[in-house]
Parts: sequence; structure tokens; C-alpha cells
Amino acid sequence: MTTPFGDRLAAAVSEKGAPVLLGLDPHLALLPAPFDRANDAGVPTAERAAAIGDFCCELVDVCADRVPAVKPQSAFFEQLGSAGVAAFERVCDHARAAGLLVVGDVKRGDIASTAEAYARAFFAPPAGADGEPVGRCDAITVSPYLGADTLEPFADAARAVGGGLFVLVRTSNPGSGAWQGHGDPPVSELVARGVEALTGATVGESGFGSIGAVCGATHPDQLARWRELMPRAFLLLPGYGAQGASAKDVVPAFTDERRGAIVASSRGIAFAYRKAETTDWKRAASDALDAMRADLAGALESA
Amino acid sequence: MTTPFGDRLAAAVSEKGAPVLLGLDPHLALLPAPFDRANDAGVPTAERAAAIGDFCCELVDVCADRVPAVKPQSAFFEQLGSAGVAAFERVCDHARAAGLLVVGDVKRGDIASTAEAYARAFFAPPAGADGEPVGRCDAITVSPYLGADTLEPFADAARAVGGGLFVLVRTSNPGSGAWQGHGDPPVSELVARGVEALTGATVGESGFGSIGAVCGATHPDQLARWRELMPRAFLLLPGYGAQGASAKDVVPAFTDERRGAIVASSRGIAFAYRKAETTDWKRAASDALDAMRADLAGALESA
Repeated sequence: MTTPFGDRLAAAVSEKGAPVLLGLDPHLALLPAPFDRANDAGVPTAERAAAIGDFCCELVDVCADRVPAVKPQSAFFEQLGSAGVAAFERVCDHARAAGLLVVGDVKRGDIASTAEAYARAFFAPPAGADGEPVGRCDAITVSPYLGADTLEPFADAARAVGGGLFVLVRTSNPGSGAWQGHGDPPVSELVARGVEALTGATVGESGFGSIGAVCGATHPDQLARWRELMPRAFLLLPGYGAQGASAKDVVPAFTDERRGAIVASSRGIAFAYRKAETTDWKRAASDALDAMRADLAGALESA
Repeated sequence: MTTPFGDRLAAAVSEKGAPVLLGLDPHLALLPAPFDRANDAGVPTAERAAAIGDFCCELVDVCADRVPAVKPQSAFFEQLGSAGVAAFERVCDHARAAGLLVVGDVKRGDIASTAEAYARAFFAPPAGADGEPVGRCDAITVSPYLGADTLEPFADAARAVGGGLFVLVRTSNPGSGAWQGHGDPPVSELVARGVEALTGATVGESGFGSIGAVCGATHPDQLARWRELMPRAFLLLPGYGAQGASAKDVVPAFTDERRGAIVASSRGIAFAYRKAETTDWKRAASDALDAMRADLAGALESA
């Protein structure tokens, strides 16, 4: 029996000493020089895809000793077609082999047997030549618009392999309120209650379940409410850094024991070399990760 | 300048004489015997993926003279990993080469530059050896939970290539009402108004724009309302057949001139051989398509 995702994530955060979720978003135009052929339409697609895969794997190697989990963003791989998806699979496998949890940021959502097929794609993909599933994720992000019944096939498939979900509750973009915040209570609160119900059935030794929620850190005034509505769910917080949220902003998403949340950072680490005005992209990423760890630790201690 | 998607879809429906959207959903367990190795975990993944691609291409060939468009469901390809995605690309290219419009049923949704990357994946993918983009779609389905601002990058990318979108407004599943129907007016009506605003900026000679909406035919009492709220949008109607909606049910989704909607059918055609208890799956699919065309024509004429 595989340990449930919620317990594995809690243990990994504790072991690595920082609630950091490293985003792997290979923006073609932002890659450092050794990989910039990925942004050249004249280069064969397979070679471009290999370049983004290589970049992400090297970034994983730079950060693996200091982050509990990574979050590859599927869109940036899919833009290079099936070759890009093969790179996504390779990055997932590389990160898992490095002992990291992999949260596939895929934001899938569909009904019935279609949802089951999506869930299989990420939780139970076919095995490769070595007999191991190729490109398996420990958790994925899912979009709830289609309804609570459409989350169940994903939750069932996750549970079967000790996997997890992060359901979009309130996203980090400026326009997220118009529809997510509609109604009284807002629809996002209904989704949050759905997440808490799902995760309640999966609570393990850590006290957290395996079904979490995405709650934008760019709405810091709401984080205490999400924590209150979903006391047993891990909250995945996008919006730190490039999108404007500070370490102080994310504190209310954590429990009183400073647990139960994980802060995502993508370009702030991966592309730190651009701000640092250096060609040593690994050193810049490593330094940015250390700075984020210290920033979060400081805010969580002093709060 | 490519003709806008709305005009191309209107013309294709008129030319083929039926508002049928052929779903390509290769459920592994439902495939006819010549392709059932796709459901054998002992078969190499590339061969399994080739089988689902072959099945869909042959189904396209059976139906191409009588349907204006096809809707490959990405989930059933993704469940076989990157090899499955390569099959998806091949099916898209095969259908477009057969003169059909391709509506990629991908239900993607994300923010800002991530939405742009998803849009590129389907509207502007990299070119293959022949210089043509591989796996390009004419339109895709998108999920609106993240907000109106997140639909814009998709709409912009679509417009640039004469493509289209179908935004989920009200889905066909039993639980669709709980969140989509929340609020007064319900959030789905806000999304519908967003769709009408977007499509209004793209209206072509047909009188329809290129941004459409997915409205479940399983809620027939709502279809007149969706038609009223989105007079210039194509409505994509899932739920006919296997999910229970009848030809009579879908009539209110059409304009008074019997235009502006397209009815999806997936397993009712693709897997008709199972109900017909025959091994001649092509004949069964062809007969089922003829029956659906006649069913819709009868309902639209007598209404």
C-alpha cells in the first residue's frame, strides 16, 4: 500500500525544511543560452523538445536537495506537440527518480469515462521498456467547472495509487474573481467545501488528506478563509514573486503549526539569471531558491 | 487571410447537409476487434497508440462525406502518453486532409502566458518535415473557470489563424448544475454573456462569430435560453444519443433558420457495432450516422 499523497507531501516538506513547490515552466523565449535552440522554429521539433526537457532536468538537479516537490506546467511542453509531451514525461520521471514529488500542472477536467481517461494518463500511464510507468505524476491540478461529480473519477484514480489532486478554487490572475467569486456564497467557496469533503475521506497520519486546493496568493485577504474552509487540505499557492505576492502574504494559508500549504515559484527561480544579469543560470537559480527559502522561513517564524 | 472559423463551420454544415459533429473517442475497451490490441497492456505503447490512431482515421474515412467536422477527445489519446498524443496529431491531420474541420476536445484553461502556450499547442504547433503544422486544430474546447481574462489569449490565438473556440457554458453531466448553475443569475449565464461578447467581435458573413459555447443537450429546457443569450455563437451540443438527449430536444438550440448549432455524437456512431451486434463496425457506424442525420433533419423540419 502506497503512502497517501497528503502524508508524503507533509513528510517531504518537513524533510526539505521548506514549503516550496518548484515550478518547471519552460517558456521558450526565456531559456538560458545552452537551451535557446528550443525557441528556434528552424530547429527540428524533437531537438527543441529535448532542449526544454534537458533544461528542466538540470534545474531539478540544481534544486532537488532543497525542494520537496516540482510542478511541471504541461502547456509549455504541449506547445511542442507530442515531442514536447515526451519531454514532460522525461522530466516527471527524472524528478521522481531524484526523490521529489511531481505535481503535474495540467488543469484537466471532463466528465465520466473521459475524466477516467485523463486520470489514467497521469496516475496510471503505460509502462515503458523498463516496466515502470512513463511520466507518472504524484498529483495533478484539476479544474472544477464541470461539477463535483467530475472530480470523483480523478479522486478515485489518485487514491488507487496514493496520488493527490489540487482543485482550482481561486486562481491568481487579476480576472479570477468575476466568475469564481460570483454568488453568495461565491462559487469558489462551494468548490472549497467540495474539496474539504473529498479530502476528509483521505486524511492520513499527517492530519492532511490527499485532495488539495489551488488558492492564489495574490488574494492574501482570502487565504485565512480558505484555510478555515479546508482545514485538512493542502493549499497550493501560486502568485509568489513574479505575480506580486510576498512571503508575509502567504502566512495565513498555513495552519497554526505552519503546515498544510506549499508555495509555488516558477520563473522567479528558473529564470533568475535574467534578473541577476549573469549567464550562470544554475547559480542564479540556486541563489534564488535559497533566498525564497529564507524569505518564507522568516515570515513563518515571525508571524 | 483565412476565412474565420464561424463562417467555415456554417459553410461546412450547409455543404454536408447535417449539423453533426463526429466525436472521435477511442475508448480502449470498446474498440472493434481489428484494433483491440490497443487495450492490451502487454502490447508496446507505440503499437497501442497506432491502433487508436488507425481506428479514428478509418472512422473519419467512413463518415467524411456526411459530416462537416470531427471532435477528437484528447483524454483518450493522452491516456497512452506521448505516443497517444502523436496519434491525436495524426488523426487531426488526417481529418483536415479529408476536408473536415477539427474541433479538438481538450478543455484547456490557464492564465496569461500559460494560456498562450496552450493556444499555440493547438492553433500554431511546430511544422513537421513537410513544412505543415502537425496536429493543428480548427477550434478547441476551453474551460472558463479561471475567468474571462484567461479566455482572451485563446481567442487571440484562434483569430490569428481563422480558428475558433467552444467555451464550456453548461456541460451535459448530471452534476453540472451544482456549480455552473450557482448564483442568480447563474455563473453559466455570466460565461454565456462573455462568449457572446467575444464572438460578437468576430462575426463574419455567415452571421456567426468564431467563439462558440458548449451547452449540454441533456438540459433541453435551457437550450432556448442559451440561444437567446448567444445569438451569434455556434452552440456545440453534447449529450445526444448515449447520454439521453433526443433530436427533438436539441431543436431549441438552433436559430429560427435552423442554423448555429452542431450536435455531437461519439460512441453512438463509433461503437454502433456493439449495439448492432455485428463485426462490421464500419457499416454499423455508417448506418448510425445516416440514422442520426435523418433523425435531426426530421426534428428540425417538423419543429
